[in-house]
Amino acid sequence: MYRSHNCGELRSSHIDTTVTLAGWVQKVRDKGFVVWVDLRDRYGITQLIFDGERTEKDIFEQAQKLGREFVIQVQGKVIERTSKNPNIQTGDIEILVDKLSILNESLLPPFTIEDDTDGGDEIRMKYRYLDIRRDPVKNSLIFRHKVAREVRNYLSDQGFIEIETPYLIKSTPEGARDFVVPSRMNAGQFYALPQSPQTFKQLLMVAGMDKYFQIVKCFRDEDLRADRQPEFTQIDCEMAFVEQDDVLNAFEGLTKHLLKALKGIEIDDFPRMTYDEAMERYGSDKPDIRFGMEFGELNDIAQHKDFNVFNSAELVVGLAVPGGNSFSRKEIDALTDWIKRPQIGAKGLVYCRCNDDGTFKSSVDKFYDQADLENWAERTGAKAGDLILVLSGETDATRSRLNSLRMELAERLGLRNPDEFAPLWVTDFPLLEWSEDTQSYHAMHHPFTSPKHDQIDLLETDPAAVRANAYDLVLNGNEIGGGSIRIHDRETQALMFKHLGFSPEEAKAQFGFLMNAFEYGAPPHGGIAFGLDRLVAILGGQETIRDFIAFPKNNSGRDIMIDAPSPVDEAQLKELNLKLDL
Amino acid sequence: MYRSHNCGELRSSHIDTTVTLAGWVQKVRDKGFVVWVDLRDRYGITQLIFDGERTEKDIFEQAQKLGREFVIQVQGKVIERTSKNPNIQTGDIEILVDKLSILNESLLPPFTIEDDTDGGDEIRMKYRYLDIRRDPVKNSLIFRHKVAREVRNYLSDQGFIEIETPYLIKSTPEGARDFVVPSRMNAGQFYALPQSPQTFKQLLMVAGMDKYFQIVKCFRDEDLRADRQPEFTQIDCEMAFVEQDDVLNAFEGLTKHLLKALKGIEIDDFPRMTYDEAMERYGSDKPDIRFGMEFGELNDIAQHKDFNVFNSAELVVGLAVPGGNSFSRKEIDALTDWIKRPQIGAKGLVYCRCNDDGTFKSSVDKFYDQADLENWAERTGAKAGDLILVLSGETDATRSRLNSLRMELAERLGLRNPDEFAPLWVTDFPLLEWSEDTQSYHAMHHPFTSPKHDQIDLLETDPAAVRANAYDLVLNGNEIGGGSIRIHDRETQALMFKHLGFSPEEAKAQFGFLMNAFEYGAPPHGGIAFGLDRLVAILGGQETIRDFIAFPKNNSGRDIMIDAPSPVDEAQLKELNLKLDL
Repeated sequence: MYRSHNCGELRSSHIDTTVTLAGWVQKVRDKGFVVWVDLRDRYGITQLIFDGERTEKDIFEQAQKLGREFVIQVQGKVIERTSKNPNIQTGDIEILVDKLSILNESLLPPFTIEDDTDGGDEIRMKYRYLDIRRDPVKNSLIFRHKVAREVRNYLSDQGFIEIETPYLIKSTPEGARDFVVPSRMNAGQFYALPQSPQTFKQLLMVAGMDKYFQIVKCFRDEDLRADRQPEFTQIDCEMAFVEQDDVLNAFEGLTKHLLKALKGIEIDDFPRMTYDEAMERYGSDKPDIRFGMEFGELNDIAQHKDFNVFNSAELVVGLAVPGGNSFSRKEIDALTDWIKRPQIGAKGLVYCRCNDDGTFKSSVDKFYDQADLENWAERTGAKAGDLILVLSGETDATRSRLNSLRMELAERLGLRNPDEFAPLWVTDFPLLEWSEDTQSYHAMHHPFTSPKHDQIDLLETDPAAVRANAYDLVLNGNEIGGGSIRIHDRETQALMFKHLGFSPEEAKAQFGFLMNAFEYGAPPHGGIAFGLDRLVAILGGQETIRDFIAFPKNNSGRDIMIDAPSPVDEAQLKELNLKLDL
Repeated sequence: MYRSHNCGELRSSHIDTTVTLAGWVQKVRDKGFVVWVDLRDRYGITQLIFDGERTEKDIFEQAQKLGREFVIQVQGKVIERTSKNPNIQTGDIEILVDKLSILNESLLPPFTIEDDTDGGDEIRMKYRYLDIRRDPVKNSLIFRHKVAREVRNYLSDQGFIEIETPYLIKSTPEGARDFVVPSRMNAGQFYALPQSPQTFKQLLMVAGMDKYFQIVKCFRDEDLRADRQPEFTQIDCEMAFVEQDDVLNAFEGLTKHLLKALKGIEIDDFPRMTYDEAMERYGSDKPDIRFGMEFGELNDIAQHKDFNVFNSAELVVGLAVPGGNSFSRKEIDALTDWIKRPQIGAKGLVYCRCNDDGTFKSSVDKFYDQADLENWAERTGAKAGDLILVLSGETDATRSRLNSLRMELAERLGLRNPDEFAPLWVTDFPLLEWSEDTQSYHAMHHPFTSPKHDQIDLLETDPAAVRANAYDLVLNGNEIGGGSIRIHDRETQALMFKHLGFSPEEAKAQFGFLMNAFEYGAPPHGGIAFGLDRLVAILGGQETIRDFIAFPKNNSGRDIMIDAPSPVDEAQLKELNLKLDL
């Protein structure tokens, strides 16, 4: 062993003992007669002292030449510091070095190894092994480890079994695009990497395993949006002999445990809200309920008043911005511009100031009197000093726009407190969603999700109205988990495939193994999957996942550190019976 | 919830309570006036009783029609059994059913769901979801979960951090064949699936993470031998600032913990043996030391005695078979035939009986007198009643053959007790091995393994003689883990690549990122990886890994349940810029 202690553990109680430390040179301060070196490792920083009187000359000179990030080993005596540093745990002591050996030198690192580094994203990714030396990244990875450990131990204690499902599986055109893996031994054939272990976990339920979980990598070959990764990690779970409430209760238990164990926060029962209610109250299926600003629908009180914009709208809906009456006219104009950007696409923004004296001043005073505006205030919950903002138009689009505005304002007003945690179950999602692209219905969750039992007939007459036994767990405005009660009989599954546009032959070719399994005693079952990357980031009080992944890929799916993907040998392709077709 | 209790938990203390159970119909015994049903779930079996007097008629008739593997839910009262079954934990009670609902029917399963099934390997794999319902498979998967959990908690408690490394990495022609993954977003380029996270865990050491582990899937596109899988699971570990003994001690601790926690076995310090010693004493780098039968080299006492077979041999080596003097002449002839098979390739087998009266009778009495044979006995440790078997020829081949014979005899004599655990460290492996195929040296472990410091010069003059800081953990004759102290400086790594036949350009193209990392303060480091599949099987007292993997592939790398790999769409290939070339 190259060390007797690490760089984070020495205290006053160690004074006068001889220790050996190893680590990286964080900083060298050479005062001529004395040299201080900050020695860093995973556990902390310990100050080394070399001094003209007490240190041998050659060691002293060697210390003067140490560079940043050199790896050294030192032996010396723990002594009391003359000027203590209360900001670090080892701040009471320093090491008077009597042996120094350089284990490895270092070139000058391309960015500073400090909490606030001078390195940009690109260079930090290229030298990720240096980036991880920085506390914010290192601590994020350690935090991720702790979260995963808590998840595993909690679920195991609840009787869940972690079972590894295969990575080399079968490609299915349904859902997102698969990454495929050519098989050398089966010429012309391909494995696919799993987008999730969905069918395998259902087969484990058929197999009687009852309570399954797995922390597992999943893969999606999608065009990457910011903060999406082609490979991501899921906490994948399934239970048999359960109904929706059983799943919700089980994983509410897990989430409460994580909040308690990792953040010291105790939360009562999580609120539950249907999808329809969430859309009505927040315009979003993943509302951030840490703050109010709930929607108030104004159709009955704002229409038929000569204001044609509202009269012709399917929905007139507003919200109250707390303290928003202090916004200047210029600020409100800027908000109007913001919401009219093509990404949001509103046509305009109606506002109404709620003055301290109880009067109102709106941008549509021509059409609405004080009594009308008082109704608006009541409906949106606006108080004196607030600002009411109103949008109108087609229902779904208008809700979505007002949701964007709500989130933007919450951000600007500092209402999204990263230290506050507000979980929420959203239930009863639509079973299907219409795709304009393909002019057909897609499964909103996936094709194994069960419709509400009494709505199966609606599949024929009004598919969009059918609700599913599907639920999401939302935390601070992010979907951190989603799941459903599954179909567990062959007939319903076949019906579902039919409504998703599969021919019986296609359904059999792709999912025959699952439908066969359903004929050998499949129990009722359901489950959920959490996105671990996102969960960890949110528990860590951050919105981006990248620093919680040791070696992330960039937005083109490249690992710029190892330079992957990369071309392969002609010979290798030949073995795989493939040719490039560029 | 479909049940108030599971099928393994009801006891006498529950008598007179009303319970709801759900599970699979294991067996129906219809006596006409009474029907017993064994109801099974993951936790056990509970007996249900339907009786002509106490059960409603329609329920009774429904019970009579239940088929094997039907999924049912029942409600009823726990009553005392008249004839108790001490073989199962719920054997004191049965459930007098008053409500029965069939949750799902089942076709007749293609094999019996019993510990000893009538299903062959192929059909069991096709219906793996039924196979897993059988206790031996189910319990193997649960055991695997327990092993993984113990590993994670032990290592975490020792300060190791589990860090996920990427699955979409860079293809390198070195080592076994990679599975590759075409990149759609980077036309003509490919990711590779990791054969191990080797370079990433080394980068994590450069990154200062100090103690890393990960239970992780790895992939090798090799022609599959029996009991090999294209995807397998590794317990992958690395430590910085350590020397070989530190790694051995750390993972000896882990192994001791597993044996204690899972098998209740306490083992003292593990023996350590160099590779050279293991080859000399056992003819194997993974000797099974649960039994003796160590090799005795006989060159000095058996050569120059007119027996030309021995005189011309590089090595004459024997072992004593305990109690082997009881073998008939026919049995010895059969052994001779066995060892002359092409798979083993010996030319012949010399034997010497050790009679109870202290005399010897050998197959080469013409050349050796009693005193000579007594020397053989002494050298091989043979006692009265034993049989000495002797092979001769070229050293490596002869040792390998005698090792095969030793293992075969141990198997036949029942010396490989699955309930006994004999771990062993084998150290100081050769750095390089000669490949007849390519007529060049390959890294025996991998190209990142460090040579013994004082032998680096030998690389130029006698590469085969160079020993590495490499070690294996052997358990009961199986390699369950292997690792090394790594190279951590650019010069030595470059030298190593040179001796492995890489041009500087090739080395840079493939491993430039690692060699660059070594220039920014790489600490000394080393590690180990355990094969989890094998470890779990051996701890479970079995030699084959297949039942410890939920969904294994067959010897052609196929998952015959889901039928993968399979062809993919023309359109999908086009998106990937690929064409089949069959």
